[in-house]
Amino acid sequence: MNINKLKRIPSHIGIIPDGNRRWALNNNKDKHEGYEFGIDPGFKLYEACLALGIRELTFYGFTIDNTKRPAVQTKAFQKACVDAVMKLSNKDANLLVVGNSDSPLFPKELLPYANRRVHFGEGLININFLVNYGWNWDLSYNKKNSSNKKTSNLFSSLASSDISRIDLIIRWGGRRRLSGFLPLQSVYSDFYIIDDYWPDFREEHLFEALNWYQDQDITLGG
Amino acid sequence: MNINKLKRIPSHIGIIPDGNRRWALNNNKDKHEGYEFGIDPGFKLYEACLALGIRELTFYGFTIDNTKRPAVQTKAFQKACVDAVMKLSNKDANLLVVGNSDSPLFPKELLPYANRRVHFGEGLININFLVNYGWNWDLSYNKKNSSNKKTSNLFSSLASSDISRIDLIIRWGGRRRLSGFLPLQSVYSDFYIIDDYWPDFREEHLFEALNWYQDQDITLGG
Repeated sequence: MNINKLKRIPSHIGIIPDGNRRWALNNNKDKHEGYEFGIDPGFKLYEACLALGIRELTFYGFTIDNTKRPAVQTKAFQKACVDAVMKLSNKDANLLVVGNSDSPLFPKELLPYANRRVHFGEGLININFLVNYGWNWDLSYNKKNSSNKKTSNLFSSLASSDISRIDLIIRWGGRRRLSGFLPLQSVYSDFYIIDDYWPDFREEHLFEALNWYQDQDITLGG
Repeated sequence: MNINKLKRIPSHIGIIPDGNRRWALNNNKDKHEGYEFGIDPGFKLYEACLALGIRELTFYGFTIDNTKRPAVQTKAFQKACVDAVMKLSNKDANLLVVGNSDSPLFPKELLPYANRRVHFGEGLININFLVNYGWNWDLSYNKKNSSNKKTSNLFSSLASSDISRIDLIIRWGGRRRLSGFLPLQSVYSDFYIIDDYWPDFREEHLFEALNWYQDQDITLGG
């Protein structure tokens, strides 16, 4: 396919990078060893999206529920998130980390990026990273913290209020569910599933999703 | 496939019966004529779910956004919703209609069923029907209407608070999106797409979805 001839590209893509543990088992490793192999794929995807002119990307890092997993796994995905941000700080992006940073499960190295957008280099793309995120936490956050704001714009009361509506969500690892990924920004998102596990990411996965997306009829219910 | 040997069935299935207008065009009818052909499929599905022991079904009727469509279409899907409820009132089900019943776009014939569960016959299954529903309306509803309840259970503040979490969502008509369907009840739902249009419903579609669902690994993020 000729990726330069797409009729329409999404402004904002959500990424659910699932399958790290299953990939590890398939590659004779312990489950927790899979997460570090999920970092490079993220940067390959970032480069491909920059080249295409995508304006915003949101990555699902880990959730509050995920931290109920064995400690060795929790430590491994926390470390992978920190390593990814350190690597991104040498690139060109505007980073916003969204998650419950009041909890000890939120990596302290990421506190400078929590709930405020930080600019790296030329800031060519907005990158949102969900770290110790929970849909329930997000919706209960009420940033304004004022009861008389209750009936105003719903988005403004979210912890994720600076993350825009998502056009396309791509999930790796074959599962067909959102798993709590930004429920309000996802209400009209088109949802594309890649069966391969995330560490096996190839640029063609993205192109395949974009090729499918360009032919979707976007109505927003109208 | 032997539908009696399913390892696991969902308690609650969400139904997005899309493609009525496209079906009408394919069958030499005007778009709005498609909706009435969506009623019988709903009852075929209802019978099949009763036989399987499914406990709860939620049907996407129409949304507040849908009413921006041409008046002839809006009238047609409003009528189809009313006709479906009248037909259901002769069956065995506990019906709950959820939607903005304060609006003139809410069919007045359905007011007796709005936001309270009504029992028909032997009440063998809970049926929820979204009529003039909006995700934004649902989340802004705040049934308790009390500011000091803000941080308690999120679900209790929804207009749809009596609709339980959904295990499996089946969408007809090929589109891979939720289109605002109960965003909080859908956070962990598995999502199955049927390419056929809803009026072409066959029992096999349901069986195909259930056959797929039984092999999904349900983790709820853990």
